[in-house]
Amino acid sequence: MSLIADTIRQIEPQDAAARVAARKRLEQLTMPHWALGRLMDLAEDLAGMTRSQQPPVGRKTIVTMAGDHGVTAEGVSKYPQEVTVQMVHNFIQGGAGINALARLVNARVIVVDMGVAGDCSDFAAAKAGRESDRSNFKFISKRVRAGAQNMARGPAMTREDAIRSIEAGMEVALACCESTDIFGTGDMGIGNTTPSSAIVAVITGGKVEDVTGRGTGIDDQQFHHKVAVIKKSLEINRPDPADALDLLSKVGGFEIGGIAGLILGAAAMKKPVVVDGFISTAGALIAHRLEPKAADYMIAAHRSVEQGHRIALKHLAKQPLIDLGLRLGEGTGAALAMHLVEAAVRILTEVATFEEASVSKATA
Amino acid sequence: MSLIADTIRQIEPQDAAARVAARKRLEQLTMPHWALGRLMDLAEDLAGMTRSQQPPVGRKTIVTMAGDHGVTAEGVSKYPQEVTVQMVHNFIQGGAGINALARLVNARVIVVDMGVAGDCSDFAAAKAGRESDRSNFKFISKRVRAGAQNMARGPAMTREDAIRSIEAGMEVALACCESTDIFGTGDMGIGNTTPSSAIVAVITGGKVEDVTGRGTGIDDQQFHHKVAVIKKSLEINRPDPADALDLLSKVGGFEIGGIAGLILGAAAMKKPVVVDGFISTAGALIAHRLEPKAADYMIAAHRSVEQGHRIALKHLAKQPLIDLGLRLGEGTGAALAMHLVEAAVRILTEVATFEEASVSKATA
Repeated sequence: MSLIADTIRQIEPQDAAARVAARKRLEQLTMPHWALGRLMDLAEDLAGMTRSQQPPVGRKTIVTMAGDHGVTAEGVSKYPQEVTVQMVHNFIQGGAGINALARLVNARVIVVDMGVAGDCSDFAAAKAGRESDRSNFKFISKRVRAGAQNMARGPAMTREDAIRSIEAGMEVALACCESTDIFGTGDMGIGNTTPSSAIVAVITGGKVEDVTGRGTGIDDQQFHHKVAVIKKSLEINRPDPADALDLLSKVGGFEIGGIAGLILGAAAMKKPVVVDGFISTAGALIAHRLEPKAADYMIAAHRSVEQGHRIALKHLAKQPLIDLGLRLGEGTGAALAMHLVEAAVRILTEVATFEEASVSKATA
Repeated sequence: MSLIADTIRQIEPQDAAARVAARKRLEQLTMPHWALGRLMDLAEDLAGMTRSQQPPVGRKTIVTMAGDHGVTAEGVSKYPQEVTVQMVHNFIQGGAGINALARLVNARVIVVDMGVAGDCSDFAAAKAGRESDRSNFKFISKRVRAGAQNMARGPAMTREDAIRSIEAGMEVALACCESTDIFGTGDMGIGNTTPSSAIVAVITGGKVEDVTGRGTGIDDQQFHHKVAVIKKSLEINRPDPADALDLLSKVGGFEIGGIAGLILGAAAMKKPVVVDGFISTAGALIAHRLEPKAADYMIAAHRSVEQGHRIALKHLAKQPLIDLGLRLGEGTGAALAMHLVEAAVRILTEVATFEEASVSKATA
């Protein structure tokens, strides 16, 4: 059996009994009924995911998947493609947004070269030679190809490479599983809002204009051009909406496939996975199309500035935890949301019940 | 000079030069322009408040002000008044929501008896005798009276007691200042959404129906009754909207005065103060009416389920950081928001600039 089929087969829904037990306790806590709102919903979810009334979330792993996109040749981004590899270098140095925010929540960051166009061969060695570990960083190479092809001219990758990218994400999840209680997703890839919008359009049925955003900050003219490029890519590739592998191969990217694989792997092992922003949610849509039950393990970190994110989250029936105008990716939203996940667990495990604290209950 | 006048006199606006310096760095960070959105706005604010490019926020103090309300005799809450003192006891035991969430962000909690009806005399002693400190808690008595009077029958307190409650909050701020980088506000008081709604109605000019909510969870009939009680209180007391002390004395509460005093004290010492939910924001409105510049030091933690909170925050021109359907008070929203404050500081101080990291900038 293939790794993808085998992993998907292992995905079970959340445990109903664990959810009921958690809800029962949460309803007895010394506070007005459900007064901590969505954090209590989250606590119930975490119990259902982990089958535990003390959901473990201490060991946090954020996996930042990096890949390049031939479609940048069409001028869809404000930044040159070389920035992808430069930012991977920045991750190693510990100077990126994800480093700072992951350190704050005590998460390790695993950066995976899924298909960067630039040379990453020195990075593992550079990392090994470092004395201090300000970067809370690990580098793994799972490179499928040196960047996806230009989807405006043909398929972004072969079907075999799409499978390979998902398998690579699963392999990362499996390799980290023993040392991880909760996963977070992240991405780095100049141009990757373009394939993400294409995926969101196909899976949700949304109009390209409605699911495309400003990415790194393009102006009106560039926006209209980006929409045209996405439309053209969909026209020439005609991805099959029912076939996630076809969709990923035609208008996807290696890091998006990696994110989908990571989410499926986490779900198979009953680990919560915090889905970062727009690109990560495109990966989540691929995962969800392959196995809808995977959504039981997804936690939506934040609502991105990218307008298509709202539509993508709605398709997954997920409400994000944070809404602070973020549009960075890297896993930064996931890192921030992990603190709220920890808060939810503390509420479930540390707050006393009315009976335990001898506090009078509400009148009927 | 009185403590109130003296404290207010010390409040200066945020420092413009510190804001400019922070913005300049934030605009050079290795990410698309302002890609961490409102966290970057917050970082700029923190620089302006603290006059520092490395705003100190490590030593966190959440002050939970407790007080009772005679208006509970009108049946405005689902809970009996005795719950206030029981919850203070729960704070001491470390079993309340605020204990759990404050521990998570490594904040100490100072619970202040501003005017609890029940007996709190044993609490300081009980605390002193404890071996382990799971409660991350300190108890202070600043009791003005054993509960405010029923505002539906006359003034909640005398003008002198209103002054005393604000001074008490200032005293707490001054006493903690040396050991605190950032303050958070919190409240405990059965019935206290009722005076808070009255204050919000008077200061914002909002209709009582629009600024009144369900508090601890009352039904439709109880809601209409609560609105009627607030209207009656305003009719018989006729508070002067231009005179915050008159307003606080007529339809306020001791803990609300304490919160106002704490905020003014923090602002005077140029310390950021995270304003929790609806009751804390009523206190913030009192502080703001006494000295509008105090708003320069306020950070709105979250948007409460209480419908009047939106109107109150709008009056202060504050956008909350969190929107998770919380309605507990105690300082729980402030505790959660403190993590985002810390995240903002990390972004300002730990993320590399394009130049530092040798990353290519955007094309024009």
